[in-house]
Amino acid sequence: MQAILDTLRASHALRLEELKAGLRIPSISSHGENRGDVDACAAWFADCLRDAGLARVEIHPTGGHPIVTGSWLQAPGRPTLLIYGHYDVQPVDPEGLWTTPPFQPEVRDGRIFARGAADDKGQILMHIQAVAAILRVAGRLPLNVIFVIEGEEEIGSPHLPEFLASHREELRADLAMVSDTCMWAEGIPAITAGLRGLVALEVEVVGPERDLHSGSFGGAVANPVEILARMLATLKDATGTIRVPGFLEDALEPTPEERARVAALPFEAGMFLREIGLEEGWGEAGYSLLERLWYRPTIEINGLWGGYIGPGAKTVLPSRAHARLSMRLVPDQTPEKAVARVAEHLRAVAPDQVRVEVRTVPGGGLPWRLSPDLPAVTAARRALREAFGREPVIIGEGASIPVVADFERILGIKTLLVGFSLPDARPHAPDENLHLASFDTGTGSLVRLFHYLAE
Amino acid sequence: MQAILDTLRASHALRLEELKAGLRIPSISSHGENRGDVDACAAWFADCLRDAGLARVEIHPTGGHPIVTGSWLQAPGRPTLLIYGHYDVQPVDPEGLWTTPPFQPEVRDGRIFARGAADDKGQILMHIQAVAAILRVAGRLPLNVIFVIEGEEEIGSPHLPEFLASHREELRADLAMVSDTCMWAEGIPAITAGLRGLVALEVEVVGPERDLHSGSFGGAVANPVEILARMLATLKDATGTIRVPGFLEDALEPTPEERARVAALPFEAGMFLREIGLEEGWGEAGYSLLERLWYRPTIEINGLWGGYIGPGAKTVLPSRAHARLSMRLVPDQTPEKAVARVAEHLRAVAPDQVRVEVRTVPGGGLPWRLSPDLPAVTAARRALREAFGREPVIIGEGASIPVVADFERILGIKTLLVGFSLPDARPHAPDENLHLASFDTGTGSLVRLFHYLAE
Repeated sequence: MQAILDTLRASHALRLEELKAGLRIPSISSHGENRGDVDACAAWFADCLRDAGLARVEIHPTGGHPIVTGSWLQAPGRPTLLIYGHYDVQPVDPEGLWTTPPFQPEVRDGRIFARGAADDKGQILMHIQAVAAILRVAGRLPLNVIFVIEGEEEIGSPHLPEFLASHREELRADLAMVSDTCMWAEGIPAITAGLRGLVALEVEVVGPERDLHSGSFGGAVANPVEILARMLATLKDATGTIRVPGFLEDALEPTPEERARVAALPFEAGMFLREIGLEEGWGEAGYSLLERLWYRPTIEINGLWGGYIGPGAKTVLPSRAHARLSMRLVPDQTPEKAVARVAEHLRAVAPDQVRVEVRTVPGGGLPWRLSPDLPAVTAARRALREAFGREPVIIGEGASIPVVADFERILGIKTLLVGFSLPDARPHAPDENLHLASFDTGTGSLVRLFHYLAE
Repeated sequence: MQAILDTLRASHALRLEELKAGLRIPSISSHGENRGDVDACAAWFADCLRDAGLARVEIHPTGGHPIVTGSWLQAPGRPTLLIYGHYDVQPVDPEGLWTTPPFQPEVRDGRIFARGAADDKGQILMHIQAVAAILRVAGRLPLNVIFVIEGEEEIGSPHLPEFLASHREELRADLAMVSDTCMWAEGIPAITAGLRGLVALEVEVVGPERDLHSGSFGGAVANPVEILARMLATLKDATGTIRVPGFLEDALEPTPEERARVAALPFEAGMFLREIGLEEGWGEAGYSLLERLWYRPTIEINGLWGGYIGPGAKTVLPSRAHARLSMRLVPDQTPEKAVARVAEHLRAVAPDQVRVEVRTVPGGGLPWRLSPDLPAVTAARRALREAFGREPVIIGEGASIPVVADFERILGIKTLLVGFSLPDARPHAPDENLHLASFDTGTGSLVRLFHYLAE
């Protein structure tokens, strides 16, 4: 193993060049005009997998962007690890806020700056480079691996579940692994053992059949914008506790172990809040900030609009008002139950004078938890501890990675979530970056992990 | 007088052609690109005044669009009537919804359709044509008249108060008259004896310094859109009664006479509501629909927006939320007090976790009432009764015409509000129109009114 780690260290410059080459491809999946770049990026990652020594490298067309797979299955009797990542990236706007252009990777202050550096090209490449180093030095892997690298993660993975279902046999594995999260802090590796689920809905409140003059009608008819504001105000109480009947009843409380792990984390809420320009947090009483983020559900208004929203003013009594809501869910909530309860509540609190339409947004995902007692977690702890020289922390995550629940539901396997970007990696934002020391140490930790998972 | 009325009748075709010529000029005051058309329209109305036989016709430059004046002051010892109107018009969008182009006037079903037909070119032209007919037949008017025709009414008359103040001497009059309202129904003339005042404000709620990922932060920090919805929900109770401390205390109750007049009107709330696609009204308990519109204040949300409002979805926890509110006021409310009370309330109900900014929108106006016992109202009743063969109704108006309060405040004179468009004249909307029989009968009623006001 030491020889492999030495090889890795010696190849730093080459590996960095490989990373830069991948980051130069503007594989923005949400833009139709980048379709050619997305295809080129799929081909580039397929070449990477071949260069690493993987077999059966394929680019699978889907109804959208292609999925790249490659595998090494020559370790009979050893476990099979499915490594998932994505080669598509978020749009770059506002492009003017980037210090250097998003698709011209540049190294500054020990970090590489480019769209996709952290999310997720850099992190999936760490896995590929770890596998390549082992194969180059040892000629064989200690376990079987299957890579699945998709091109639609940033647009909700619309074709992945169907792909998993129709390739269940080829993808038969014992564990999945995803590196698309972050470390707790520089030098502090983390294993993510929980994700919140997600479901979204749209609400439209319809009043008069056309926009009315607010002088000629104001005071006599219900204003749909006002009614929608009143409806939304009933979702939570003044402390931020959700008041939708039945909603919280489905939400499992965090366990004493989970609460103890949260309490033991080196975390300062004040600093967390100051970094986003706030002095005070807000939310459900009885839970710490991290508990609210990781172990309690939320209903957020993502967008709200109605009436005249252009420049200047217009004294209109609007005909319609709209809101987009999304809910983050915890076990044992389900997207279906959560949407049904919120929709029912919104309809119940609306007065008869308006019509309320609630539409579920396709997509979303189930909440997910991993037991920290699993052997795979033990292996990951050891690998990370040895590589980083520090015991990793077990954390939760307020966001959702629907594919993790898909692996469990469709392939019947658990997922190990270990990420190597830093909390200020700025995924989805200008100046996205990957910390290069973590990139190197993390790749080494993966070499160790592949060995320990095989034991 | 009969000879004058006969002359009017005989000149119908000519007068209609004159109206069409005025309606062909796209004098949209809010669009910079129509500045030349607005100037051309001012010149056109100045020519009209000259052709009618008025003296001292002038086009006064302002900081914005010009004001046209003209007068006939050769009746010493007789009262002077200041006739106000405006030659600017609203924008025409959505232009696709017009049956015929907005600046190509067309007569259909006894109405002329064009932008400005009712609001206000057609109605101010009725006054000019009435004066022209009297001067042509009698050689002199029974009273003195001063026309003030502005070009910025549709953008809030920003330069009119200053013009009135700086021309106080030339504009010395006993009474003002405005025809920019409507009749109660076809065949039922109306005198408007009350207007609500107006004041607007903008509210911005600021939370985190940038838009956040709703999964990574949702539940831990205050969502400004949610907070704004909660704040707006406190403005009224569930019945629509305003709950801003002190707000209603300033509002005078309608008098028993006013309530009796409202109750006696031929009005069916169900039909009023069905015409805007509603089955039920909404608002303060204890008042009829018309009482709420005319004699009670309101706070309306004219526009509300925050977060992601584009197509698709984005799971964002927004940094900011905005609302535009306008208030319609009744005596003894003032714009200053109303804004102060609402601003104070909004700040008081906002939690510490957000910053609230309230900005007053310039413009607006005081509420206004006219005693129906004034001699001018008696003269108007008589003129309208004789012309239309039916006793006019005394009505209120929920909208605001700030110039009316300006006449009282700056020139010290009362205003007579008699309008001739029908309730379905669609001012500000596609297919604006003026009912031609009312145009003719109304012009005749003005000939009578000028005589009776002189008595």
